Parts: sequence; C-alpha cells; structure tokens
Amino acid sequence: MSKPIHTAILGASGYTGAELLRLLQNHPAFHIVALTGDSQAGKPIEAVYPHLRGRNLPALVKHTEVDFSSIQLVFCCLPHGTTQEIIASLPAHVRIVDLSADFRLYDAASYEEWYGHAHRALELQKSAVYGITELNRAGIKASRLVANPGCYPTSILLPMLPLIEAKLIEANSIIANSLSGISGAGRSAKQEMLFTELDGGVSAYGIGKHRHVVEIEQELTAVAKQPIKISFTPHLVPMSRGMLSTIHATLAAGITIEKIRATLSARYAAEPFVQVLETGSASSHQVRGTNNNVMSVHAGRLPNELIIVSVIDNLVKGASGQALQNANLMFGLPETTNLELTAVFP
Amino acid sequence: MSKPIHTAILGASGYTGAELLRLLQNHPAFHIVALTGDSQAGKPIEAVYPHLRGRNLPALVKHTEVDFSSIQLVFCCLPHGTTQEIIASLPAHVRIVDLSADFRLYDAASYEEWYGHAHRALELQKSAVYGITELNRAGIKASRLVANPGCYPTSILLPMLPLIEAKLIEANSIIANSLSGISGAGRSAKQEMLFTELDGGVSAYGIGKHRHVVEIEQELTAVAKQPIKISFTPHLVPMSRGMLSTIHATLAAGITIEKIRATLSARYAAEPFVQVLETGSASSHQVRGTNNNVMSVHAGRLPNELIIVSVIDNLVKGASGQALQNANLMFGLPETTNLELTAVFP
Amino acid sequence: MSKPIHTAILGASGYTGAELLRLLQNHPAFHIVALTGDSQAGKPIEAVYPHLRGRNLPALVKHTEVDFSSIQLVFCCLPHGTTQEIIASLPAHVRIVDLSADFRLYDAASYEEWYGHAHRALELQKSAVYGITELNRAGIKASRLVANPGCYPTSILLPMLPLIEAKLIEANSIIANSLSGISGAGRSAKQEMLFTELDGGVSAYGIGKHRHVVEIEQELTAVAKQPIKISFTPHLVPMSRGMLSTIHATLAAGITIEKIRATLSARYAAEPFVQVLETGSASSHQVRGTNNNVMSVHAGRLPNELIIVSVIDNLVKGASGQALQNANLMFGLPETTNLELTAVFP
Amino acid sequence: MSKPIHTAILGASGYTGAELLRLLQNHPAFHIVALTGDSQAGKPIEAVYPHLRGRNLPALVKHTEVDFSSIQLVFCCLPHGTTQEIIASLPAHVRIVDLSADFRLYDAASYEEWYGHAHRALELQKSAVYGITELNRAGIKASRLVANPGCYPTSILLPMLPLIEAKLIEANSIIANSLSGISGAGRSAKQEMLFTELDGGVSAYGIGKHRHVVEIEQELTAVAKQPIKISFTPHLVPMSRGMLSTIHATLAAGITIEKIRATLSARYAAEPFVQVLETGSASSHQVRGTNNNVMSVHAGRLPNELIIVSVIDNLVKGASGQALQNANLMFGLPETTNLELTAVFP
Repeated sequence: MSKPIHTAILGASGYTGAELLRLLQNHPAFHIVALTGDSQAGKPIEAVYPHLRGRNLPALVKHTEVDFSSIQLVFCCLPHGTTQEIIASLPAHVRIVDLSADFRLYDAASYEEWYGHAHRALELQKSAVYGITELNRAGIKASRLVANPGCYPTSILLPMLPLIEAKLIEANSIIANSLSGISGAGRSAKQEMLFTELDGGVSAYGIGKHRHVVEIEQELTAVAKQPIKISFTPHLVPMSRGMLSTIHATLAAGITIEKIRATLSARYAAEPFVQVLETGSASSHQVRGTNNNVMSVHAGRLPNELIIVSVIDNLVKGASGQALQNANLMFGLPETTNLELTAVFP
Repeated sequence: MSKPIHTAILGASGYTGAELLRLLQNHPAFHIVALTGDSQAGKPIEAVYPHLRGRNLPALVKHTEVDFSSIQLVFCCLPHGTTQEIIASLPAHVRIVDLSADFRLYDAASYEEWYGHAHRALELQKSAVYGITELNRAGIKASRLVANPGCYPTSILLPMLPLIEAKLIEANSIIANSLSGISGAGRSAKQEMLFTELDGGVSAYGIGKHRHVVEIEQELTAVAKQPIKISFTPHLVPMSRGMLSTIHATLAAGITIEKIRATLSARYAAEPFVQVLETGSASSHQVRGTNNNVMSVHAGRLPNELIIVSVIDNLVKGASGQALQNANLMFGLPETTNLELTAVFP
Repeated sequence: MSKPIHTAILGASGYTGAELLRLLQNHPAFHIVALTGDSQAGKPIEAVYPHLRGRNLPALVKHTEVDFSSIQLVFCCLPHGTTQEIIASLPAHVRIVDLSADFRLYDAASYEEWYGHAHRALELQKSAVYGITELNRAGIKASRLVANPGCYPTSILLPMLPLIEAKLIEANSIIANSLSGISGAGRSAKQEMLFTELDGGVSAYGIGKHRHVVEIEQELTAVAKQPIKISFTPHLVPMSRGMLSTIHATLAAGITIEKIRATLSARYAAEPFVQVLETGSASSHQVRGTNNNVMSVHAGRLPNELIIVSVIDNLVKGASGQALQNANLMFGLPETTNLELTAVFP
Repeated sequence: MSKPIHTAILGASGYTGAELLRLLQNHPAFHIVALTGDSQAGKPIEAVYPHLRGRNLPALVKHTEVDFSSIQLVFCCLPHGTTQEIIASLPAHVRIVDLSADFRLYDAASYEEWYGHAHRALELQKSAVYGITELNRAGIKASRLVANPGCYPTSILLPMLPLIEAKLIEANSIIANSLSGISGAGRSAKQEMLFTELDGGVSAYGIGKHRHVVEIEQELTAVAKQPIKISFTPHLVPMSRGMLSTIHATLAAGITIEKIRATLSARYAAEPFVQVLETGSASSHQVRGTNNNVMSVHAGRLPNELIIVSVIDNLVKGASGQALQNANLMFGLPETTNLELTAVFP
C-alpha cells in the first residue's frame, strides 16, 4: 500500500466529527493524525465519545496546536461562522473538505444576506467547489477546498438537479417538504433538543427561511440558466438520524412520470450510492448508516404533478459520508473506499 | 342530573374504542352499558386493555348479544366494510356516531370506486352526515347517523374549507403533506407495524391513492361549488399518536397571508377546540391527548404561496374526541363535556 | 361550591409545574392565582409551554412579586437547594406541598451528607411530613408542609414498606432496579439529555449513590425499627415519562409469595390509586398519565426469592399527581379530586 | 486470496439473517451462495428487506432446494424447534453455526423440560458446542456444530463466568436484570410487538421462567462444579436493538470490588471485543451495531454487594456478530474479520 495520507479532523467533538471517525475506521489511505476540539482539548476522544474507546485515536487538541506542515487532508467540522478564518489560515498544500456552510455560497452578497455578516475569507469562497459528488465530479477532483453540502440540499438536489437541467419540470414549481432526524441539530445543549421536548411529536421549523434553501436555489439556478426559487419546509421527527424529502413539481409539457423515472435511472445507473426505485416508495430505514440516496418517483393527483421521495442518512450522505466520498475522489482513491455499507436495520 | 343516556361502543377492542373509554370516564350523561368485540367476546375489558382495569366497565360481548332496545347512543368503532350492515341493523331510535369510513362518502359510485365494492346500506349512506363538528354543526345536531371524519381530513379541512369557501385560495392548488402517528394503523398484528420496522425511520405511503383524499375533495367540492382536487401524501413517523399536516396553496389574486390568518382567526374565534396561532408554528406536542386543532399560517417562498401547519391528535380530534364532541352536540350537551383536556407534555 | 382556595405554583416553568397545571385544570377548589418562574418572569405561560395556551392562567412572575397574604396553598416545584429558604420565607398561614428533596430527610446530618451543605431551614425540616399519601394519611392531613416524595421512592416504598413493617421479608435483602423516563431529569438544557444521546439506548447511573436511596432507607428504617439498607440502581430508558421498579427481596422464614400478594392486596384494597395484580406483570404503559401505582408479585428462581414489579408515571404519582393528592387531603377534599384519570394508551 | 468458502444462510428472512447479511458484506472468505426462507421462497431478498437492495445476493429459496454438496458453512437462523431436524439432515462435511436455542442445552431432560418436547436430534445435540467465543475458543474451533448463545446469556456469562470459575462471588447470589431492544422478539407479526404497544413504556416479562436462564445456569454450573441457580428478569424497552444487564452478586469472603475489576480486566485484556471500563458505567449506546461487550464494575450498597453493568448489541454480539466470530474462528480466519465496527452513534 502506498504512503498514508495524513489527515486531521477539526471539530471532532461534534456529531459529524464522530461520524467521520466511524467511517474512517481501517481506511486504507487516510491516517488520522490530529483531532481538534477547542473546548475539550486535552481529553482523549473516549471522554467525549465513549463509543470510540479502544480505537487508538489521538487525543483532542486545540487547532492552534496542530502542525499542519505534514498534514495533507483536513475535514473541517467546525460550526458555521468560525470555520472561514480557520480554513483561511491553513497552509496552501492542505486540501480541505469543509462540512460547514461557510463556503457553500458562491455569491458574497447572498452569503451576507443569509448569514448576517460579511464573509471573512472571500477569496477562498470564490475558489471553493460545492460538493455533491455525483453532480460535480470533475470540479471536486480538481479542487483544493470542497464545500460539503447540507443534508437537506443533498436529498433534494440529487433528484431535482437533473430534471431542472433537462427542463423536464417547470422551473418554479418545486415544493419540498423534508423530515429530518434530530442529529442535524448538533450536540450543543439546547432545551428544545431535549429528549422530552421531541419524543412523541413532530414540528415544522424555519418555514420559508431555512438557510439550506439558498444552496438549493444556487445549484438549480446554475444548471437552469435562469433564476430558480423553491418552496422548502423542514420538519423535525423523533429519530436520531435519517432524512426523507417529499418533493412536488409540475411536469413540463409533454413529459410523463415514466420519462422522469427513466431519466433519473439512466443518470444514476452507474452510481454506487444512488438508487432509483422501479416500484415502491423510498423509506429512510433503507439507508440508515449508509452513504446511499434512494429515491422513488410517483404520479401526484393534481394535473401533471410529479412526486419524488428521496431519502438519505443525514449524517452520512448528508454530511460525513459525502465528505469521505469527496476526499476519496480528491485523492484518486475509489470513491467507495470505506463507504460500502449495509443499512443498520432494524 | 337528568337520566343517563345508555351508550354502547361497538368494536371497543381497537384503539379508537379504548380512546373513547378514556374520554368517557365520568361523563355526566353518557353511561356505558355495552361494549362489543366479537373476537374477544366474553373477556373483561382489562384482558384486552390492562390500562382500563378498575373502571367497572361491562365485559366485551358479541354485537348480536346486545339488547339495543334501551340504548340511545352507539359509537361504532368497527373496521371499514363490516360496519355498514351492522349499523343498518340497529333500531331506528338509536343515534349513531360511526368512526369508520363507511358512511363518509355521499356518492355511491365514489364509494364503490375507492372501497372496491357496492355499498350495502345505500339508504343509510344518503342520510348520514359528515361530521367535522365546527363545519357542520346544524347538520350533525339534527342527524341520526354521523359519519365521523378521518384523521387526515380533519387536520386538512379545518384550515382549508373556510379558505376554499371564501375563494381566498386558488381552487386546485392544495398540496398537503401529512405526518401521522402509528396508532392510525390500528391494533391488528401486521409485520410492517412492528416497533422494529418503524422506530428510527420515516416513510411515505399511499402516494396519490390514500382513501382519505376523496373525503377531503368531497367536502371542498361541496363548498367550492366546483370540482376540487388536491395533492395528498401521508407519512408514518415513529410516534404513537399525533398528526401534523403541512399544507401548501396558492393565494387568490389580491389575497395576503394576513388576510388568511385573520379569516381563520375570525372563523374559529368562538370555537373551544380550534386555535389559530398569531406567532410561531404549530407542533403536534401541543395537542397530544387533547381534542384541539392548532394551526399556524405562514408565507411560502414561491410567489403567492401560502403554507399552513395544522396539528391534531389523530386519536382524539382525529377520531374518538370528535366522536364525543359530535355526540355531545347531538344530545344537547355542551360540546366540551369531558373534552376540556390539557395536552400530556412531555 | 365553597370559596375557592387560592393557590400558587412556585417554579411553574419546569416539568412538574407544567404537570400540576394539567392536573389542576377545572379543579373545583384550587384556584391558581400565581405562577412563578424567576428566569422567565413576565412571560405568559404559553411562551414557556405552548401546550398550555388558552387556559387563562396568570403570567409568570418572580416569587418576590407574589402577595402570599391571600394565598392558602403553595405547590413548590423549585430545584433542590434553592427551595428551603423560599419556603421558610412564606407566611405561616400558607400550607405547602414541596416537590423538591429539601424537606424529605428528617435527619440534619443525613441531609448534609447527601446534599453537601448544611440545611438552611432546620426548624421547618423538623416539622415537614414525608408524603406518600397512602402510607401517612394522618400526618399529611395535619401538616403544614408536606415533603412530596421522589419518584423512585414512591415506586419502591408503596410495595415494600408494608412488607418490611410486617417483617414478611428479610431486613437487608432489598435489591431494587428502576427504569425511569427522561422527564425525571428536568427541563434544563444538558448535553446528556439531548434526544440524540438517549434515543435507541439505555444506561444505568448513580449506581450505589443516588440520593433517593436515603429517602427509601429512612422510611423503611422508621417502620422496621432497625436500620435498613437497600441496593438501588436507577436506569434511563428512552421514553418521556413512566417508571418501573423491579424489586428483589428474600422472604422471611415461612412466608410465601401468596402471603405477600394477599398482604399487599388487603393493604391497598380500599385505595383508589394502588392496584395489586392477581395475574400478569405490571407495565408502565398501564399508568401513563395517571396517578396510579400498579404492582405485580412474582416468585423468583433463587430460594425464597420475591420479585415485585411496581410501576408509576414519574410525573404523576411520582411527583405532581401525588402532590395534588396530598393537597386534596390537606384541604379536606376527596383525594381523588381531578385525579380519576385513565391512562393515555397508546 | 484463497478459495471462497461457500456459505448458506437458512432462515435469512428474519432479523438475525438480515444482520448476518450486513456483517458479511465484502467478507474476504465467506461467499454467500444460498439464502433460504420457506414462506418467502422465490423472492429476491430486497422484496423482504428493501435495505439489502443492490447487494447482488441470491434470491430466497426453500431449504430443500439448496444443493449442500458444495456448501461448507451454514448459518442457521431458523426458529427454535424447526431447526433440529433440518440441521440433522445436512451432509456431514457442512459446518454449522446455529443461532437457535435447539442445540444449546447439553442435557436432553433439561431440553425437554424447558422446550416442552423431546429433542429430535439427540446425537447432534451431544456433539454441539456452546459458543461464547471468548469462553470456549478451543471447543468452537474444533467443532462441527456451534450452538450460538442467546443474547441474554452472552451479556451475563461474559462477566460472570470468570468470577464463578475463580470463586470470587458466592455461588447462588447472582441476580440479573436485563433490558432488551425489541428486535430480540423477531419479525413475526404479533400484537404485543406493535410500535404502539411498546413505544413510551417498559415492562418485565417471563419473570422466573425465561428459557435463557437454563443456558446461563448450565454454563455457570459447568465451571463451578456445583449446581448454580440465578435470578433473571428480562425487560422490554422501547429501542430496536441493544441490551443492558445489571447484575448483582455477593462477593466471596475477602474479595474486593477492585479484585473483581482487575480479574475481569486481566481475563479480557487481549480480547478485541470485550472491554472492562476503569471508570464510568457501560451504556448500550456504546456498542450499537458492534460486536463489542462493554462492562463496568461497581460497589453496591448492601454488604459485599457487587454490581456489574454489561452491554451488548443483541443482534450482533448477542446473535449474528458472535455467529460470524465463531465462523471466522472455525475456518482459521482472524476472529475480527468483518467485525471491526465502530458503534453507530447517535
């Protein structure tokens, strides 16, 4: 085997960091040499994540303590906002997959509008590549900095981008309702994320205002070559991980449901992680713990109504799994390395 | 207190029967004199529902064993299909709230299309009244047989019927996505309803084909005075009870979100069980165990897009609670009798 | 109806406060005139608990803002430690049910040992009465200050105290393993109480050191007239409310399982809230949302081994329900007032 | 790589079969050539388990359709009772790991007593080896037929067997209370296993009578060289997978908690799948999806009381994972092959 690729995870004490550590176990190329967690610095990882005991991982340190000169790959799992300056400070030879939202928006004004402050690493932002692997392989492979997509955008763009690109659906007809597991909210102690507040009930949130909508619109606009707006409503359901998006759209004139299914099937036929069902309806159970996106295509009841159900595991294809897929691609490894996973069911 | 009203529950061994028994505890007027459950006949109710132990309820009997001559009120919780003939056989003096779907459709052809067989009590079907209490008070009060609505229709019609009636939204623009607790599937042993099959994941089902859609369209069509079709997609989420419908529609020309909210607020201002939020978003936690419907009104991101979030407890306002509300109304009692409930939270 | 009894809830913004508000809805005697919540003062209760919207409750105020001169009953739901001085400051005419642990231990040294500081209201502590209603009715009725028991002690003492008292089991043979819903941990934002940290798994905690053990031993010691120690291990299971204690003990010489069951059945035959099963095993589902304690008596496999399974709802009989039961008793009302509840199942 | 070992799974349509398929993905030696499921014969595996779609697995067939002449390894996941005759019919060259209880009891009379009928493959029963890998490595390696242990016994024997063997605890002092995820009940449709019946509550079952107790006693008796009885009470908690056993015992004269911990630590120091915690308490979250057993050792409050908390994933170390570990051992492969798994958390 070739020389190991020295790898650091910044912000390893959050859920996406922990999930990366799960996925990187026994990775044949990426060798973890540093884990950072500023507020937990000095602790072994098992003090923060008992389930990672016995893995021979480095202890958590502050990111300023890491010697990046010998590090080739950084996964950045830091919170939105604090990420950009830290990534800007990394040496030029380091390649980065950033799981935050900091580099996902190409347009500085848009970033400022949605995130409430001017971007603090504008040049980097311009060079970053939005990284849904299946939709931008060449760009990701060549890039230094991949902006790993949000979970909601991944579940929606995989089915919808090819349809918008091929003009098979009407431009501004997309209505997406998404159901998310709670891990998407992170590991910070918040009253509204307590078990007791969430178990046994469901709620919608961020109606018309969730920041992920702008990512989705940016990517759809790019391929549509016209401005695209969508309706997007996220919901919290009482499960730890998993995501299901039910997406409505209006078929373009003359387009059938069968044409939609055939187009998506053909588009993803060679993809190891995307499956278009011929029958039945996608369920998040099918992808729990995996890097897969499963989608099903249905006729709605309204005239020319298309309904697509698209499922992912928000922590895997929606975060750390896609990050690893992107890193595999960037370093010339098979994309599926350490990602050939069977769903954990039941 | 006046003379007790002798009451029977047919099909008391299912979840809606059990929920009726919860709600009828210490009811000042309705006195339970018979409980039927053909497959469990002979057993005390606590053999079927241990949580009902100690309530001094009659044992389960076959419905043929009940002497209906002294019974004034019947709640019918039997399965769809088996209900119609049994109800048809009841003496004329008995008033009935039927929780099945058997008498919800006014149109015999429509019934046959959606339920796969000719109706077996056509005359009765014609006289039945569809019973969302707030939307048809006079009809329910005067009726002998109330067809208690489905849970999904209740959550969708309460917000949408007044808007369609007043032509505040475009006729065929309604897209409803609903999330349901598992109790809606009943208590029969089915592999797909096992804990292990449902915990930790979500799925959509019956896309474009769920029978509740025809109820909704029937009621909307009646007030619109033109045929209405809607898009309706139900989902199963891992919770025992509760329902949340996220409903999209297009505002009619010149209508604002504020106008919608004001209209619904005014419509339901005097209603004890319907609340229109001024701020925030409705959550099913708010109504768990109660007969309440809470709704919130939001602007969507698409042009003229209205989003309404509507929540109920599927077993209460979506079934047994509304049944009791209707029975209270039919017998001249305050509608809120035994239904002034605070949500069980957490 | 007689004059309403003016009632205040101190610390109404926690889960036990919210549960009291649920149970007090439409109470015929206790009229809520003040709700305190120091950090939330000024807010309507529905800002803190949306499910309490529309109940016409007073807004939250600081406890120093309450005029206690006209208040006759206080439920105190404040955290351990901060409670004692506030209760000590109340006027002498106010009767109090305290849901904290502050007045449960009769022995000052014991309090100091287990709570880490000297008691700050020693005189009051001496006059407080430990309040499992069924086990100390006369004392509670006559008292000014009731120390409402912990949830674990309630589930264990109800079955075990009569057995220790009658010397039907060996003195130091009790091994109790208890499973608790998460609401017992309160509503404070803590990482370890996040949905994601608890869903899908179980854990034991406070092994050999949980503070509730000293309450249990105090009460058992009092009736045994010899020092009693017990083994007690609490566990957290992924449910919001409910508690099940599996209790092992060694039968005294010559005592049979049947004798134990008969003794408990006789002891609780007239009690509205305690049920001793003749067959089957107690399940927390049976008591969800109710003030009931259900217990079942079993033979273990070891020689002379007794196993009792005892279930309660930790927020009702384990906290707010028993508090109301005690208050009903203190004010000469039927104990069952507003507590005749059927379990919320499913 | 050497020649693939042809492998069949009998009863692949149950949960342990599905879990084996997860664990065998990309196994370097075991090549799946047949999957049986008599009632589902003819269907592709994804018709039964959608999450196994895309794995290129053989379709389900009846076991009578399998040509065992070229098969070297069989995992048998059939129900108790139906297993013995089928295994007896397999050709002599086939090695078998049986996940049912059929061959776990060495004593024919004991089998008959606990399972209600005479054993139908007595000779085979005598040659079977009870297979907790860490406790009987030599026997398993040499055997043709391994009786894979029950989940409860695995979680209890791993900590207790070395202690009984070394006489560090008193012989008949073990009281084990175990909490199990629901998947232990299998995939058959049963009313009591519905989501609605289990969510939000806990229960004990089989008190004093669960069949797993006899396995535990058999193994403890063998090393104690005296008859051992234990108290064992299983509980169902609302989670799909995971198991936690809280085990009480009395220390032998002169033995300390530290001695117990040191003994277990030393015993399992070289074991890849067993971890003895130095601090903290074992939680089932730590082992979800893995083949690990984590245990923690605590002082109880009673005199000389030892408490051990032992956790496994009931479907992995408690079933399919240990089955694979045994198969790896039987075929001379590293035991950890395909079993180096990080827990799926959250």
